[in-house]
Amino acid sequence: MKNLKIASIPGDGIGNEVVPAAIKVLETIANIHGGMKFDFTHFPYGCEYYLENGAMMAEDGLERLKDFDGIFLGAVGNAKLVPDHVSLWGLLIKIRREFEQVINIRPAKVLKGVKSPLVNPKDFDLIVVRENSEGEYSSVGGRIYQGEDELAIQNNIFSRKATERAMRYAFELALKRKKHVTSATKSNGIVYSMPFWDEVFKDVSKDYPTVDTDSQHIDALSAFFITHPDKFDVIVASNLFGDILTDLGAAIMGSIGVAPAANINVNGKYPSMFEPVHGSAPDIIGKGIANPLGQIWTAKMMLDHFGEEELGNLLLAAIESVTSAGILTPDLGGIHTTEEVTVEIIRKLAN
Amino acid sequence: MKNLKIASIPGDGIGNEVVPAAIKVLETIANIHGGMKFDFTHFPYGCEYYLENGAMMAEDGLERLKDFDGIFLGAVGNAKLVPDHVSLWGLLIKIRREFEQVINIRPAKVLKGVKSPLVNPKDFDLIVVRENSEGEYSSVGGRIYQGEDELAIQNNIFSRKATERAMRYAFELALKRKKHVTSATKSNGIVYSMPFWDEVFKDVSKDYPTVDTDSQHIDALSAFFITHPDKFDVIVASNLFGDILTDLGAAIMGSIGVAPAANINVNGKYPSMFEPVHGSAPDIIGKGIANPLGQIWTAKMMLDHFGEEELGNLLLAAIESVTSAGILTPDLGGIHTTEEVTVEIIRKLAN
Ligand SMILES: CC(C)[C@H](C(=O)O)[C@@H](O)C(=O)O
Ligand SMILES: CC(C)[C@H](C(=O)O)[C@@H](O)C(=O)O
Repeated sequence: MKNLKIASIPGDGIGNEVVPAAIKVLETIANIHGGMKFDFTHFPYGCEYYLENGAMMAEDGLERLKDFDGIFLGAVGNAKLVPDHVSLWGLLIKIRREFEQVINIRPAKVLKGVKSPLVNPKDFDLIVVRENSEGEYSSVGGRIYQGEDELAIQNNIFSRKATERAMRYAFELALKRKKHVTSATKSNGIVYSMPFWDEVFKDVSKDYPTVDTDSQHIDALSAFFITHPDKFDVIVASNLFGDILTDLGAAIMGSIGVAPAANINVNGKYPSMFEPVHGSAPDIIGKGIANPLGQIWTAKMMLDHFGEEELGNLLLAAIESVTSAGILTPDLGGIHTTEEVTVEIIRKLAN
Repeated sequence: MKNLKIASIPGDGIGNEVVPAAIKVLETIANIHGGMKFDFTHFPYGCEYYLENGAMMAEDGLERLKDFDGIFLGAVGNAKLVPDHVSLWGLLIKIRREFEQVINIRPAKVLKGVKSPLVNPKDFDLIVVRENSEGEYSSVGGRIYQGEDELAIQNNIFSRKATERAMRYAFELALKRKKHVTSATKSNGIVYSMPFWDEVFKDVSKDYPTVDTDSQHIDALSAFFITHPDKFDVIVASNLFGDILTDLGAAIMGSIGVAPAANINVNGKYPSMFEPVHGSAPDIIGKGIANPLGQIWTAKMMLDHFGEEELGNLLLAAIESVTSAGILTPDLGGIHTTEEVTVEIIRKLAN
């Protein structure tokens, strides 16, 4: 019996609505299909925790989390309570960094029965491999002068180690898919970090002669998501570019509420973290209409990660049979609640 | 008689096909509507010039250009001939910087008769005001170490002066439109430059109490372009974010070949430069099918800039009557050539 110890952090806003839903689904899977068990421990970290304790997580929070097999996170941030850069860097980005979750993988495809805002999304079906540890999200920078002359400086930091690691991950993934990797660059405008990025891409690609490659500037690439959505397989992108492309991907999927993600620790020293692409959506808190699919699909990614790909595929099939049947939350044009969608998925799994 | 001295730089690739087309249109307008005359001087700067001369423009190129009333540019860059960062920083970005063209304005809307890739683009009609002088496009950075330990560092530099200037420009524009400004930020992930950007935005907005504002992270904002295309009026964005958003806007318009732009010198010391959003499109050079609409619409922006808004509106009306009639290049799903589209626009204007 595989016993998986998972730390659950619902976090803020609708995280508290979709994480419990996805946990019910995971428990159903474990019950029905046997051979594995989830053991969830709940952590109340987030903006409300901050208001009470002056920090986004307990002082020894990382210590408490580090021996779990995985972390199942909802959403972090509610700017009405805590400034975003405080909440995010105190919890989400902190865990990504400290637990060396250096790769963020985010698949995007249009689910059966879900309407894309694109006239013709064709075979939109890709994975973005996002460098998750450095790049444009750096804590190196500052300000000088006050008033009229004030300057803010922010360093983008790209190391060969991290860049190469993300690229190799992308190529390995491509070998299992359609053998194509697109590199997101902007070396025509950003003349130190991005030409470096291109060089590393060229070097790494030599080790994968069977994988086709192309390189697109982020502006054109964003446009191609809309005009040529079927032209992609695996995309490797820096922290910021990956962030932008995956929200675009989510929009093309029909709603950011659908998009799953995983922050992967590749050296085995710390747990990986599974969190959907969407945020805490303060505007719909408590209405019972949050889309649970992003979180539930994220649960599928967690199953895959633990080697349970068969169960993962079963879960994705259950999701798609429910979306095909038109059982959708309002963000997807439906009339159903978080609960109704979840119950239907559980019913499918039970059959 | 208003006599406008314009430097024309067709540049690379299809720049050489669409600039002559747009010049014919401008000359027609001047002939028919009188009161003004264009006097074009042609400069052969670009990648082929580089191959012959080892530089993207003449040594005294800026000196030669600086007394013109305006610069009418096609496209720069052809990575098969010259690395992008060399060609762009040697011509396009050089002129933007040296001539203090600190604001880049880029309208986006779906023209009549043009099919958007969005199912429902609704009233997609916005202007992006892009900071054009600093930010993520900085020439400050470098590398350290070799091999495994190599690091590339790139500084993003945001000054209060430039940030405020772009924002004021956006607010002034909004006063003449729907009185709404959206700020493109990423202060949840990028913690020095972007919180600074937010602060300046807050400060500037106080001077415009009749203008509504909102602030969106670039990832979500990119997604909203697809899911809520009618929610925008004026958007103010940093150099990089403006670059990405305007390509997205162009994609929603149906083709990047349609999108116009202007690089504005606001202190009156140097000419402004008018160049469409699209690039040199090396793949379709010489086929006669480049879309001239981006360049022609850019000519309209030049007319507006010289106070000829009536003529500018006439030109846009001519463009739309041609698109409504289905006279479109292949990028818009049509079967017409650069020449045919241009001739039709000229015919409309002559009537
Ligand atoms: C060619 C490139 C440097 C340029 C930019 O990023 O500014 C282009 O994409 C644009 O938008 O004008
Ligand atoms: C909340 C924010 C800091 C975060 C990011 O940009 O990484 C989010 O947008 C994401 O994509 O996970």
